Formats: sequence, C-alpha cells, structure tokens
Amino acid sequence: MEQVCVGVDIGGTSVKLGIFTLSGTLLKKWEIPTEPKNDTKALIEKIGKSIKENLKEGGLSLTDCVGVGMGVPGPVMPNGYIEVVVNIGWKEVFPARILSDLLDGMPVALGNDANVAALGEAWMGGAKHIKDVVMVTLGTGVGGGIIIDGKIVPGKHGLGGEIGHMHVRESETEKCNCGGKGCLEQISSATGIVREAKKLLAKKKDTSRLALIEDLTAKDVLDAAKAGDKLAIEVVDIVAKYLGIALAHIAMTVDPEIFVIGGGVSKAGDFLIDKIREKFIYYTPITKSKADIVIAKLGNDAGIYGAAKLVIS
Amino acid sequence: MEQVCVGVDIGGTSVKLGIFTLSGTLLKKWEIPTEPKNDTKALIEKIGKSIKENLKEGGLSLTDCVGVGMGVPGPVMPNGYIEVVVNIGWKEVFPARILSDLLDGMPVALGNDANVAALGEAWMGGAKHIKDVVMVTLGTGVGGGIIIDGKIVPGKHGLGGEIGHMHVRESETEKCNCGGKGCLEQISSATGIVREAKKLLAKKKDTSRLALIEDLTAKDVLDAAKAGDKLAIEVVDIVAKYLGIALAHIAMTVDPEIFVIGGGVSKAGDFLIDKIREKFIYYTPITKSKADIVIAKLGNDAGIYGAAKLVIS
Repeated sequence: MEQVCVGVDIGGTSVKLGIFTLSGTLLKKWEIPTEPKNDTKALIEKIGKSIKENLKEGGLSLTDCVGVGMGVPGPVMPNGYIEVVVNIGWKEVFPARILSDLLDGMPVALGNDANVAALGEAWMGGAKHIKDVVMVTLGTGVGGGIIIDGKIVPGKHGLGGEIGHMHVRESETEKCNCGGKGCLEQISSATGIVREAKKLLAKKKDTSRLALIEDLTAKDVLDAAKAGDKLAIEVVDIVAKYLGIALAHIAMTVDPEIFVIGGGVSKAGDFLIDKIREKFIYYTPITKSKADIVIAKLGNDAGIYGAAKLVIS
Repeated sequence: MEQVCVGVDIGGTSVKLGIFTLSGTLLKKWEIPTEPKNDTKALIEKIGKSIKENLKEGGLSLTDCVGVGMGVPGPVMPNGYIEVVVNIGWKEVFPARILSDLLDGMPVALGNDANVAALGEAWMGGAKHIKDVVMVTLGTGVGGGIIIDGKIVPGKHGLGGEIGHMHVRESETEKCNCGGKGCLEQISSATGIVREAKKLLAKKKDTSRLALIEDLTAKDVLDAAKAGDKLAIEVVDIVAKYLGIALAHIAMTVDPEIFVIGGGVSKAGDFLIDKIREKFIYYTPITKSKADIVIAKLGNDAGIYGAAKLVIS
C-alpha cells in the first residue's frame, strides 16, 4: 500500500480534511463542522475518529499514514503550544499531543493556518516546488506565510507572516482590531477595500456607480474598477499601493523568489496583480531583479495541502 | 593540532582577517590594505598569500584549516556570483572559486558583509548562540542581516536584510541614493541623523546647542540629546520612531528572538536602545510577547567572526 499523509484545516465553521500521497496527490477530501467549540479535546476526538474512518473507507490502516498536520486559525508557539484561538475557543492547549495519543502515537504537526496555506501553495500550488515563497492572503483580514528553504518561518512569538498588521499608512486615524493604526489590513483586506471606497464616496458621491450599491462588497469595488469606474480605480490603486509597500518590506527582509496572492480578493485576478506588481516595482528601486507575483492556485484547499506537507517536510 | 577556520572581511579601505578555533575563539587577527582595487584576482591572491603566511606563523598548515569565509560590501547571489561591488571595483566574478583554487581547493564561502556581521553577532556576540537573529547596522548607511535557524537568509535577488531601503516615511520629499524616497536610511543612519537635525535647526535655530556646532555629526546630536537638548531629543525620537516601525515590519515577517543593533550610531548605547524599544513596542500592539533589542558586542570584528562561521555552519 502506498503511504499517505493527512492534512487538517480547522476553521471557525468547518474542519476540512484531506488524504494525500506523499508526492502531493489529493486522494480524498471531506469536511466536518467545527463543533463543539470551547472544548479542544472533544473536537480533536471527532477529528481523530473521522480520520480513522476515512482511512479505513479508503482501504488504509493507521500504519499506512506517516502523519497528520493541522492548521489552526491562531498563533502557534514553536513547541506546539496554543495560548488562545479566539474563534474556536481554544485556550492553553497542546492540540497535536492530544491527536497523536488518539492515533497510536502517530506524528502530528501543528501550524498557523496562514503559514500552512503558504506551505500548501509552495508544495503543489502557485509556487509549486519553489523553496522561498511568501504568501499573502487577502480575505476578511490580511494574513501571510513565509516559507524559507521549504520551511515555514513561524517566528519566536507567533508573529511570523503577520503582515496584515504592518504599519504602512502614517496618516491613518482609525484604529485596527489589533489596537494599532495604519495597518495593511485596514486598507487591503476585503473589509478595508469597502472602507476605502466608502471614504472616497463620502467625498465625491456623484461620480461613481458604487454610490448606487447597497451593502457594498469588495467584489463590487473590484468589478467596478475593471469596468472603468474612476472612483473604484482610485480605491484599487490605494489598495495596491500599500500592498506594494508591504511586499517591498518583505522583499527587503527575506527577499523570496515569488509572492503568491490568495484569498477572496485575489479572485480579481491579473487586474489586481498587475497593479500590485507596478507598485512593488516602484518601491524597490534598489534592484532590477525582482520577485515574481502570482495568484494562488489551491483556493480553499491550500490549508489541507500545507497541513499534510507539515509532516513530510 | 586543533582545527581552525579563517574569516575575511573585505572593506573599502582594508581587508580584516582572523584565525578562529571552531568553537569561536579568535586566535589572531590582522589587516591588509584593500589594494589593488578593480582587480579581483590580484586582491584575492594577496589575501590567499596573507592567509598562508599567517597560518604558517601560527604553526598551522593548510590542512589544519577547515575553510575560509569572506564578507564583501555588496550583494552576493546564492551561487556565489557577484555582479558588481562598486567600492572595490569588482564586476562579474566568483571570488570564492578564485581563493579556493589558491588554497589547494579548500572550502571557501562568500556572503554580503552586513549578513556576515549578523552571523558573527549570532555566533559569539550580542546574540550569542541564538538561532533567530536580526542585526541592524547603523553607520553611514543602514544595513541589516537576517539569521533564521542559525543561517543567513541572503535572499533570491541579493536583497535579504536590505532594511535600510524600506520605505517607512510617506511624507519624505528628498531622494535616497537607491532612487526611492522615504527610506529608513534617510532618517536613521549617521548621515540621516545629521540631516534630520539640520532640518529641525532650520526651523527653530535659536533653541538648540546644536546650532553652535560646525560640521555637525550624528555623535553631536546623540550627545546633545543625552544632555537634555530638546531639539536633539526630538531628532532622536524621530530616528527611533522609524527604526521602531522597521523592526515591527521585520517582526511581522520573520519574528526573530532578538534584534542586535550595531554600527557607529549604536555607541549611543541604552539611551538609544530604550527609545527604539519603546517605539517597537508601540508599533507591535498585536502581541505582548516581544523580541529583545540589544547592542552589538563585536564591533568591527563582527565581520571576521561571521565570515569564519560561514564555513562551519
């Protein structure tokens, strides 16, 4: 029997799971609800049971599986300790140890979800087989993951890749969720894009089709920009400018071979990527040789891919 | 005979060399002038000859030496290729290969000087035996070196640790040497400190003792700030603010265990470090657990230490 590994991506609503060959072929994927919350042991027990059942259905035993990797939506200390993960109610736990005990001592690895997604894209996605990769996820917030020499850089205080909270705009007056001001996430997340659009609309309402839309979304703004709406283009230029500055900061720190842009906002495709690239080039005049910027390929599966890779890297 | 390694730090004026035990004891150090320039082979031949002579004087043969590391003041590609090093006139060369051929095929490693200095401080200096270290060198310019898991992160385009050219000040109007605007180096280098002081003096000349000094230096500004001069304190606060922002950017990328601050400006000591720490804390509200910030310990020897460590890591 070919050996396999399992990737688990624990989100606020659902837990995604996948069985992979060691060379990165997804054999099976499924989901279970993230229930119960606030009880790490109970959820991990459900995950362990589900892994056993699905391996068995695939004609696999525990000994065919080299290990399980898990991504969680919060900071993970280098020793696998989790202080707190707010949106699933975990506190002061070592989740990998619990799961390993349930799976006859099988190796279980743990990582932060944004870091793990970056590893997934570096394994089988937009940066396939590239060893120095930075992924930026533009969703409700802005997350990031740094892969150097094929390995996640988790950081010593759980901050590795927390690029959404880089202070990039000096003139910002509103506070970010993190307590700071001028964070990248305040501008370039889906939420940030809507906020920027509303700020401009408040100034010059009559000039944009966006003024007619109730419950404005980031997609509305990006679609309008693509269609030539001037105010929307102005918003996208601001969003791309601060992303370009942040990518330049990252380049002048770890200088990856490639940046992978993922998350819901990245569905805007080349239109957005081209603008980000233009700004990135502008803010890195020091060199002609630049990192590539590409779109993520694995979508919502990046987490299970990267989690699985955790145990075979 | 105990085995040794050799570190070579090639600067614009002199080449520093040191013989080390593999556990980091400096046995001997010396210097030769960086002559001739614009002729890589001729300078490397002088370096090779000097290494052989000094090993011999120490009763050592080439076979007692496990290798030679070299730091150079310019970008080094991952394969050891140097496109150009302006201030020693090197162009399109593989210097390590030349030296290795002269030393009977001995292993020779090459690195950028700022990266190599960081490795030195991580080996035997301010961050001794710590594996995740970022060094910031505040001299005529601002340089940096990123050490992750005990190894230099050189970057894929020679940009690893080029933190002096992070765009940190949006309102900057003057151009930096790199062609950009608002670079950290424009504010927090020795040159930048003088420039900031002159800008403030031009606004309110009568309020500061600095107005009386001809040929103002960064040391004058830092000394005056320590002595309570209000305008000088204002300058140091600006310098520390942008350093704090840059360290926060780095923390949200690779999140090191410790920052080491070196270079001539760092001689201002705890007075400066305390102000940088205060700003770093302010710009990282997302976490309570922070990286330490300490002063470099090896001074001008950091380069030879780090270069030597290149061949034994």
